[in-house]
Amino acid sequence: MSELKRIEDLIGDIHSLNQDAIDAASAHLDSLTKPPGSLGKLEDISKQLAGIMGEVIPDVSHKAIVVMAADHGVCEEGVSAFPQEVTPQMVLNFLEGGAAVNVLARHAGAEVVCVDIGVNADLEHEALVARKVRYGTANMAQGPAMTREEAIRAILVGTEVVDELVARGVRILATGEMGIGNTTASSALLHVLGGVDLEAGVGRGTGIDDARWRHKQEVIRRSIQMNRPDDQDPIDVLAKVGGLEIAGLTGVILGAAKHSCAVVIDGFISSAAALIAARLAPVSVQYMIGSHQSHEQGHARMLEAVGLKPMLHMDMRLGEGTGAALCFTLIDAAGKIMREMASFESAGVSRG
Amino acid sequence: MSELKRIEDLIGDIHSLNQDAIDAASAHLDSLTKPPGSLGKLEDISKQLAGIMGEVIPDVSHKAIVVMAADHGVCEEGVSAFPQEVTPQMVLNFLEGGAAVNVLARHAGAEVVCVDIGVNADLEHEALVARKVRYGTANMAQGPAMTREEAIRAILVGTEVVDELVARGVRILATGEMGIGNTTASSALLHVLGGVDLEAGVGRGTGIDDARWRHKQEVIRRSIQMNRPDDQDPIDVLAKVGGLEIAGLTGVILGAAKHSCAVVIDGFISSAAALIAARLAPVSVQYMIGSHQSHEQGHARMLEAVGLKPMLHMDMRLGEGTGAALCFTLIDAAGKIMREMASFESAGVSRG
Repeated sequence: MSELKRIEDLIGDIHSLNQDAIDAASAHLDSLTKPPGSLGKLEDISKQLAGIMGEVIPDVSHKAIVVMAADHGVCEEGVSAFPQEVTPQMVLNFLEGGAAVNVLARHAGAEVVCVDIGVNADLEHEALVARKVRYGTANMAQGPAMTREEAIRAILVGTEVVDELVARGVRILATGEMGIGNTTASSALLHVLGGVDLEAGVGRGTGIDDARWRHKQEVIRRSIQMNRPDDQDPIDVLAKVGGLEIAGLTGVILGAAKHSCAVVIDGFISSAAALIAARLAPVSVQYMIGSHQSHEQGHARMLEAVGLKPMLHMDMRLGEGTGAALCFTLIDAAGKIMREMASFESAGVSRG
Repeated sequence: MSELKRIEDLIGDIHSLNQDAIDAASAHLDSLTKPPGSLGKLEDISKQLAGIMGEVIPDVSHKAIVVMAADHGVCEEGVSAFPQEVTPQMVLNFLEGGAAVNVLARHAGAEVVCVDIGVNADLEHEALVARKVRYGTANMAQGPAMTREEAIRAILVGTEVVDELVARGVRILATGEMGIGNTTASSALLHVLGGVDLEAGVGRGTGIDDARWRHKQEVIRRSIQMNRPDDQDPIDVLAKVGGLEIAGLTGVILGAAKHSCAVVIDGFISSAAALIAARLAPVSVQYMIGSHQSHEQGHARMLEAVGLKPMLHMDMRLGEGTGAALCFTLIDAAGKIMREMASFESAGVSRG
């Protein structure tokens, strides 16, 4: 089977949510001792999870954050505050459990699965999921970031990682990433697919000054002019001005939806992957949970383009899956509301 | 000692934060493997807690949510979607562990302390903290909600509850409340002390329709005209158009600050108490942590008037301390970042 056919089949395997389960979850929520709807997004999460998994109170205790790591050839243009060598260094930090996402994942009772999908260095570690598609993307300011075949292969790596996680019991996923230069690619995707101006859609990444910020916009403008991505073909855009980790996360999102698992979307780069997934398979948005509103300029517009409403406003701008990890604690809280709250009847409380 | 003198002494016992501890926490955060400041409000929390407690990484594992319960005479005017009998019914629900705040407090590892500071019914339960100042407020549309002495006594009940909790090891507090009718009193406080129009500052509470919403505004307008609260005297405003649970929470906030404990502010009603505390002792704001942005109209303006920025945007509108309970899980996450993350040196990661 061709790889393109596999993507088409994957998209065909994603179905709308189970409305009966949503209605049953909604009825249960309205029986609990609170005004109807007064727990807001906690109630929305519970209804969405019911619809995704087809059970009124599904068990999502087994959680994983998939951190896709890759490098970006566009770093040659001087778009980032950190050197490219930080990508493999941080991958080892994830694997040793010392990064922010590891700390927040332990806090939420989630595992971190780190995938080398395109780091521009040879990496070895027993915990690493080694699925390198190529040694970093090419410099998109000089030509396409990758070929169409590489973009498709990277998407399929993402779905295969999810296949393996679901096979060993994972029931909810989150997206995370590491890749110096990846806000540049994400802003390019937002501009082409979301129609957002570079002034509004390009941010400071890990922390660049005004001069470099204007230079970053210019590099993206040049990359798009050179590659002429087709905004009606998300895979073309992904290949020409995207990134390997973004493609991998697109696959994670589509794979989660295929397996009837919710997927929590982290920050700016993860949301770029969500935008690709949404354009490839609009129904996949029903499986996404927006986690946080990043400090990165353009993230609000990116979430709007996908159709997600974030719960956390923490001014975070780290990526890695850190915002999604925090969101897991809210999702667990939503489940406990469903399981543990008294009803009007059981507590003898009058209704309004 | 007169009760007014006790309030003055309490205010005098609240001091600015420890800048050395804040600087040390900040230096520690900047040594960790992330761009400086990239964890946003998680970093702010860690710095604030260091400044409050005078330690770089303080232990705040022993947490309590103080739920103050009281009734409102203004319910006679038909301002709420639920009958007044729900206040004592919900207090019993809190004491039995079946309410939303109980579920979310267990999730966060916090205890719930429920105080009867003015429920209009006789309540008995071994877990109840029975500190009734009076059987509900009077109807503020007919005269003052309570006397100045009662308002001061209710504030002191709040500080005394904190004294007891701190004596048995509690190191961080949160505010919660129950009181049918208390969004009406809170909107009145916001109007008088924050200068916010009733159109903008009056919301739907537990869920009222348009006609009752306009009636609620009219009742508040009438109450203010009748009582003429002095906007330069927060205790006068609290007594005339406030509530017993709001006064109690003002005392909880001031008591927390006196004991160098952080206090997490819940939703609309808790924020009204925070506004009173801020006007009585502006330095007390340094001890407050904003938790969530409620769905209740006027909460954003209330938080702005106090000077707090909420982390959670959950569209919640339940009160009880539910938003503050969720925020505790973020505060714990901030502490783990301080304790568990690798440094650039220990992980061998290059700096920008």
